[in-house]
Amino acid sequence: MIREFELIKRDVVDKTRVFDYCKDTLRLPDGRTTVYETLLHKGAAAVVPVLDDGRILLVRQYRHAIGRTALEIPAGGRDSVDEPFINAAARELEEETGYRSDDLEPLISIVTAIAYCNEVIEVFVAKNLKPSNQNLDPDEFIEVEAFSREELSDMIFEGKIQDSKTIAALMSYFHKSFS
Amino acid sequence: MIREFELIKRDVVDKTRVFDYCKDTLRLPDGRTTVYETLLHKGAAAVVPVLDDGRILLVRQYRHAIGRTALEIPAGGRDSVDEPFINAAARELEEETGYRSDDLEPLISIVTAIAYCNEVIEVFVAKNLKPSNQNLDPDEFIEVEAFSREELSDMIFEGKIQDSKTIAALMSYFHKSFS
Repeated sequence: MIREFELIKRDVVDKTRVFDYCKDTLRLPDGRTTVYETLLHKGAAAVVPVLDDGRILLVRQYRHAIGRTALEIPAGGRDSVDEPFINAAARELEEETGYRSDDLEPLISIVTAIAYCNEVIEVFVAKNLKPSNQNLDPDEFIEVEAFSREELSDMIFEGKIQDSKTIAALMSYFHKSFS
Repeated sequence: MIREFELIKRDVVDKTRVFDYCKDTLRLPDGRTTVYETLLHKGAAAVVPVLDDGRILLVRQYRHAIGRTALEIPAGGRDSVDEPFINAAARELEEETGYRSDDLEPLISIVTAIAYCNEVIEVFVAKNLKPSNQNLDPDEFIEVEAFSREELSDMIFEGKIQDSKTIAALMSYFHKSFS
């Protein structure tokens, strides 16, 4: 039986655009106390956009945290904790790829960094994509590319796609669709 | 052509056991400046432990960030940025599951939270598991359970397994081994 940790005190150290940075004082199951740094996040949505020919759209953007560009499925944070995840998914799909879809189906739900952040990303599969207009945030500089299932699988096992939500989403989509 | 962001200034705001919390002042491709909060992490390793009968070992532990227990593949941070990932993998496998293996093969490499953290997790598949001794950190309270491929797939699509490294690793292992 795994027992919970008891939250004794939460100090919100920093409020940023993306998360609140907190120092949480916890009582462990053995009675000791410790401090866990914890990021509180509004949650996000991501989309596997499938073209009519079966290829999948990814976005390439510079990621400062890792100091290089990365290939990812389109994704973005909810505007608030009240926004339905599917609304965020539809918005980010259109803003980042320039395609929209009324055919969004839930695929998986993921927690990105479970050791220190409560961010949940709900992942959807989008089909029947219609050309629309890309509409990027001021700090987004993005290129859109389409890849076959085989190309994506190869890039994952070669380490060319490393983003966790992207690998989890693509491999789950392949498993569900083709096994 | 995606251009890099230029790092103008880094303020290390907080050094914790798990990461350094930084405020990075950046120059964007369009010339504006902005601040990105960035977590610097030593990197981690994770393991898909495969029993001789094909079942896979997961660990269940309480995760404060999400306020509940979670099922995950065994994983843990490197002791330092110089530690080979495979050493961390072998150590975490033995400490968390009580099994050891001399047969660790690289599977995938993932970045957990690409928007704000540089954490890389190198994931290995471990076979020929030998019973050894579980040896948990003082704040680890863990149960070990074995599941079939079908059970794991069902739990992922039912949202009962949400951890991103675990979904990425298991689905990649299934794709590589059975497709």
